[in-house]
Amino acid sequence: MLTYAIAPRSSETNATGHIDHTAIPDWLELARTPIYQLFNPDMSFTTWNTVIRKMTIDYIGQVFHNRKTEVRTVVGEIKNTSFTVKQELWQDETLVAKAVTVIVYFDYANHHKLAIPEAIRTQLLAL
Amino acid sequence: MLTYAIAPRSSETNATGHIDHTAIPDWLELARTPIYQLFNPDMSFTTWNTVIRKMTIDYIGQVFHNRKTEVRTVVGEIKNTSFTVKQELWQDETLVAKAVTVIVYFDYANHHKLAIPEAIRTQLLAL
Amino acid sequence: MLTYAIAPRSSETNATGHIDHTAIPDWLELARTPIYQLFNPDMSFTTWNTVIRKMTIDYIGQVFHNRKTEVRTVVGEIKNTSFTVKQELWQDETLVAKAVTVIVYFDYANHHKLAIPEAIRTQLLAL
Amino acid sequence: MLTYAIAPRSSETNATGHIDHTAIPDWLELARTPIYQLFNPDMSFTTWNTVIRKMTIDYIGQVFHNRKTEVRTVVGEIKNTSFTVKQELWQDETLVAKAVTVIVYFDYANHHKLAIPEAIRTQLLAL
Repeated sequence: MLTYAIAPRSSETNATGHIDHTAIPDWLELARTPIYQLFNPDMSFTTWNTVIRKMTIDYIGQVFHNRKTEVRTVVGEIKNTSFTVKQELWQDETLVAKAVTVIVYFDYANHHKLAIPEAIRTQLLAL
Repeated sequence: MLTYAIAPRSSETNATGHIDHTAIPDWLELARTPIYQLFNPDMSFTTWNTVIRKMTIDYIGQVFHNRKTEVRTVVGEIKNTSFTVKQELWQDETLVAKAVTVIVYFDYANHHKLAIPEAIRTQLLAL
Repeated sequence: MLTYAIAPRSSETNATGHIDHTAIPDWLELARTPIYQLFNPDMSFTTWNTVIRKMTIDYIGQVFHNRKTEVRTVVGEIKNTSFTVKQELWQDETLVAKAVTVIVYFDYANHHKLAIPEAIRTQLLAL
Repeated sequence: MLTYAIAPRSSETNATGHIDHTAIPDWLELARTPIYQLFNPDMSFTTWNTVIRKMTIDYIGQVFHNRKTEVRTVVGEIKNTSFTVKQELWQDETLVAKAVTVIVYFDYANHHKLAIPEAIRTQLLAL
């Protein structure tokens, strides 16, 4: 399991006093950084090779600005050209959101899906 | 069906050349404005009374900055305290994303769900 | 003078109840769209040719979510390779912010400044 | 001098391949966290008591996504009800932006400026 500490931004709160639901996808994406590094080690955008296919977020509880905030990330099913990432958002000892994201290994230049190499598959399973 | 024209922002593109996936929730939220106005006519945050419970986005195609962009919104199932919103994101003649959002009618002061009044239920069905 | 209507987003409010100061640069940028179109008519990023050199924002009053919001834009001094844009943010009948932005005409491929062509100079003055 | 490490987000890049200029105000704000804590120790928004009055950013060089990124912050002049914060944005060994922000000590409930207490003044000078 990967853990990633988030520093909530005051601009991410909204006028109800909590973190706006639109900030959570950014936090989830940051927490997936080690996964993207497996596919694209130097994180250069000229060699970027993954694409988000589907994102589901369950907003379970109110998310606050001044709390210790952590995203916990595991890789779920790995198919031929795509895989699933399961994430939980924790604040202090409370689970406040859960997310499932489907990511496709993708060749931007030729605009088609790629088979996930065995080496990356092994590394994903080891996270 | 509600239609809402979006003005994509250059800050919403990313270095792959397309709109970043994290911008889409903001566009969907803007397009739900007429729905929130049914629950909270003057859109004041001191009387805000809905909360996003779940959001699922299917990213179907690449989303571009300089295209005519429109969100199409319909209300789906209406339960006792929550309802479902179904949205499509179109650019020119292409469907680029689909989303399903579950929204709860919520009393922030007392922190509990509320039954959706019959009058609002009728208005939701008429959108 | 250019005028541009802004649709404030609920995600742009913060927990003090007002629009966060970090949202204003996005609004100013949207309102400069007709200026960028003079330099880059199809607004493609592969031919993008301006860069923000300096931005100053005076936050004069509180900015609200549910108000009629407009940015008023004029071009100020035009130098050899750069020009100044002066903007005002109005909500209803109240001036809430003023901004001055210096923009450079820039060749991204060769990484140097360009002299602003006479034709664009004339169009900037006519805005 | 305060130093604050920034984790650039992929959503903060734009289609020119660099960090969008609108992301920098968010980074500067994060780096001012220790200053806000002097005024509002638990960082609760119900007791929030500062407001941004003016922000000037010099964009000196291109800002990249996958670089070690740090904001360096010092307090400048402290007046009766306001003070100036000077910040530099560094990536690896390169200064890429400079900013000056004027912040007012502010009573949101009664909507007027407050004199900065001597104790906070001393702490600001000691940062």
